[in-house]
Amino acid sequence: MLPRQLLARPAWLFRCPPGPRGACAPGAAGSWGRPVGPLARRGCCSAPGTPEVPLTRERYPVRRLPFSTVSEQDLAAFERIVPGGVVTDPEALQAPNVDWIRTLRGSSKVLLRPRTSEEVSHILRHCHERNLAVNPQGGNTGMVGGSVPVFDEIILSTARMNKVLSFHSVSGILVCQAGCVLEELSHYVEERDFIMPLDLGAKGSCHIGGNVATNAGGLRFLRYGSLHGTVLGLEVVLADGTILDCLTSLRKDNTGYDLKQLFIGSEGTLGVITAVSILCPPKPRAVNVAFLGCPGFAEVLQTFSTCKGMLGEILSAFEFMDAVCMQLVGRYLHLASPVQESPFYVLIETSGSNAGHDAEKLGSFLEHALGSGLVTDGTMATDQTKVKMLWALRERIAEALSRDGYVYKYDLSLPVERLYDIVTDVRARLGPHAKHVVGYGHLGNLALIRSDFGNWIRGQLVISFRNRGVLENTVLSAVGGISVCTDPSDKTCTSCAHSASC
Amino acid sequence: MLPRQLLARPAWLFRCPPGPRGACAPGAAGSWGRPVGPLARRGCCSAPGTPEVPLTRERYPVRRLPFSTVSEQDLAAFERIVPGGVVTDPEALQAPNVDWIRTLRGSSKVLLRPRTSEEVSHILRHCHERNLAVNPQGGNTGMVGGSVPVFDEIILSTARMNKVLSFHSVSGILVCQAGCVLEELSHYVEERDFIMPLDLGAKGSCHIGGNVATNAGGLRFLRYGSLHGTVLGLEVVLADGTILDCLTSLRKDNTGYDLKQLFIGSEGTLGVITAVSILCPPKPRAVNVAFLGCPGFAEVLQTFSTCKGMLGEILSAFEFMDAVCMQLVGRYLHLASPVQESPFYVLIETSGSNAGHDAEKLGSFLEHALGSGLVTDGTMATDQTKVKMLWALRERIAEALSRDGYVYKYDLSLPVERLYDIVTDVRARLGPHAKHVVGYGHLGNLALIRSDFGNWIRGQLVISFRNRGVLENTVLSAVGGISVCTDPSDKTCTSCAHSASC
Repeated sequence: MLPRQLLARPAWLFRCPPGPRGACAPGAAGSWGRPVGPLARRGCCSAPGTPEVPLTRERYPVRRLPFSTVSEQDLAAFERIVPGGVVTDPEALQAPNVDWIRTLRGSSKVLLRPRTSEEVSHILRHCHERNLAVNPQGGNTGMVGGSVPVFDEIILSTARMNKVLSFHSVSGILVCQAGCVLEELSHYVEERDFIMPLDLGAKGSCHIGGNVATNAGGLRFLRYGSLHGTVLGLEVVLADGTILDCLTSLRKDNTGYDLKQLFIGSEGTLGVITAVSILCPPKPRAVNVAFLGCPGFAEVLQTFSTCKGMLGEILSAFEFMDAVCMQLVGRYLHLASPVQESPFYVLIETSGSNAGHDAEKLGSFLEHALGSGLVTDGTMATDQTKVKMLWALRERIAEALSRDGYVYKYDLSLPVERLYDIVTDVRARLGPHAKHVVGYGHLGNLALIRSDFGNWIRGQLVISFRNRGVLENTVLSAVGGISVCTDPSDKTCTSCAHSASC
Repeated sequence: MLPRQLLARPAWLFRCPPGPRGACAPGAAGSWGRPVGPLARRGCCSAPGTPEVPLTRERYPVRRLPFSTVSEQDLAAFERIVPGGVVTDPEALQAPNVDWIRTLRGSSKVLLRPRTSEEVSHILRHCHERNLAVNPQGGNTGMVGGSVPVFDEIILSTARMNKVLSFHSVSGILVCQAGCVLEELSHYVEERDFIMPLDLGAKGSCHIGGNVATNAGGLRFLRYGSLHGTVLGLEVVLADGTILDCLTSLRKDNTGYDLKQLFIGSEGTLGVITAVSILCPPKPRAVNVAFLGCPGFAEVLQTFSTCKGMLGEILSAFEFMDAVCMQLVGRYLHLASPVQESPFYVLIETSGSNAGHDAEKLGSFLEHALGSGLVTDGTMATDQTKVKMLWALRERIAEALSRDGYVYKYDLSLPVERLYDIVTDVRARLGPHAKHVVGYGHLGNLALIRSDFGNWIRGQLVISFRNRGVLENTVLSAVGGISVCTDPSDKTCTSCAHSASC
């Protein structure tokens, strides 16, 4: 029933197959041309000595569409458009051809590094006329292979489009180029007493343009909502080089359609986002974090519900993780649990304007939660170092898992009451084939979930698990990260996760 | 540079010309078939004895497109589709043909009242096949003529589509039919400890479907943000009767485009919204209102800035009004100012989870504001009756103005520092022709404003003011309500506001 013309992607931009939105890795595996930040360094995926990633075109039954290949004349044209911004050195092209979790590898032979929207426009116009395929790339921190070429697409990197264009100190409206790194923007606005409305583990490398293109949710979603609400404007370059100025849509198109919304989450398939206008909330004066142990998933949910009521407007994050997650961050990263062993853990963050009030609210909540048995143990932090330590337990789960084996990670939306069932179901289904099956995620994002439930979710998951290619077309928005580690030495297991014979 | 195919409206749905989004009247002038609420009753626009509104087609140079006219066979077909829901009584059709501010009148001869999306689908399919024009109508509370026919379009009312479909008590997700009245939804979710994320003066009559179709902002925008963030799903019936189910888009189309966003603010031109899924925030436990006098507009802005810092997460509304507004609500509605006379007034609302904390925060803020001269006088209310009295001063300005003369009301977006300049400029421009020129509005909505400023805004406004038809195509999103009262007895003045000779 969907208008097919909207779903049909411009063929020259087509990539195979886009995954769920908003999934980002905790640190990029050396996105091209950017300094690799501390978050990136700690990931094992980029560690030296790891085996070469097989080419996507050899691993999956994908077929290259009849695009042209880049000629010497094309390279000369690109050099005229972006002098000094044409990369053809095979060594320099290795990193941008591989995704962060090292499951996909393209064979692009040219990467372009424009500095302006006009340069992007000229590049796309040229590619359009020459029938050359293009793969836009931000920080290359995505976990679903959306940022790397499948074949020899030209990689169009936003890395040099990293300028703040304006910031308004009363409204908190930031206008910047798409290649600004999220963490750098965070520093920029924090110096001016604001914060970015989104935060991700990958902040040290991911680009704001990529965040918008994948409709990233992240750690502040609970408090500040979706990018559909906080992104106020976009500048986008379309397939034929047309620059669509929705940055200034308010002054021109109030009575028209809010076209910029279509590009949020469209993963570069409708055009290349080149600039973003985003609303930054004021910086909270006080931040508290509580880390609690819960006896069961029902108590995790009940804690969330109670928490929303008692902490109300200061609740800024609510994350959960299971016991296996904690064992793995302990085993591989030597992070000690700050509370006694529990089946589940929750991390609660408050952000407010009055430290005393916030501590009092959090205190009453904890007293209630402990008294009513929702929570069996807990700790609280207000100083920055301890806050960061507690956050690390949650933020570094993906990293710990990646050291445990071959990881298949899916971000899923399920009805909240059934969210953890998928973990126990997958555990039961895989039995000894799986090394570990764990569940964790932003419970606060449950706003994304509908309240009904049908067989379809379960069905999709089982099919998807058998075949990653299918799953990437069917999994839903990020809510709980469900990870399945298969033992690297167990060939049967790897095959089990990839064949239909499981 | 915009893709024209997206802007071109399906001809059969075309209305002339849609105005700015989100502008709603403080009470509907008897929307068809719904009980007229207290807010509606107090408006003067529906008062008996007011002269008949001239027909739009006679007042403006508009041309009927070559649509069919409704035949007896059509009426019979409609009667089969919606038994008992076909209205042709000329008297019953009077109200739905006229807009709330009584400036536009259509001459529709049939109004249809479906109960289900399927009925809407059958109606639209029939109209599509028969080339009949259709005008969707919700509560008919819009201030810009968007909800009434221009010629003899069939009025498709959502009044009987007023069922709540589901409510989820953990997530606060409400799914309901498009014809639910906002105030009734508010009561429904408030009984369950949630609130609607939007609130308008017109809540007693406006429909949630109309709110979404016009992308209404309203009084809670500052705290809960835009409908682009809070609307989680939509069901829409397209021109040809196709039912587009974006209510369940999460389970079907995660990797596709967020199509529902296009319908938010599209004013019925892309399809008829038949159901809405919306995220309701938890009900705040404490609400406080402060009403303050400010010596100038610069102090109003500074108060807002300070307020955001000191009240942070509990700030839920920040409204301003000028001295003339206060004089008019005094003169016509006998509402006394609770503070000493000032050039400007601001209304600040806080909503939080702890009454004591909130009162303390508001107290410190007021002390600071009075001490630093930002505010010259103020009063504060916590009990519901006084809170409502203070809100009435702001909410009933439109009503007071409508008793003062012929009102031309425009909702504008301007750079915040220059927002009030438009009032002084228009005052200077009109001189004695205008009876009153006033400014007021949701300052909190300044999130909608960009931070740069060019001549274009001023230019557009001046042109627009000379000709309402032009202005309605060019004014920007609702931020400040700028009203110009022309003396009803002064014919020159009326002409001045409508001709290019001013």
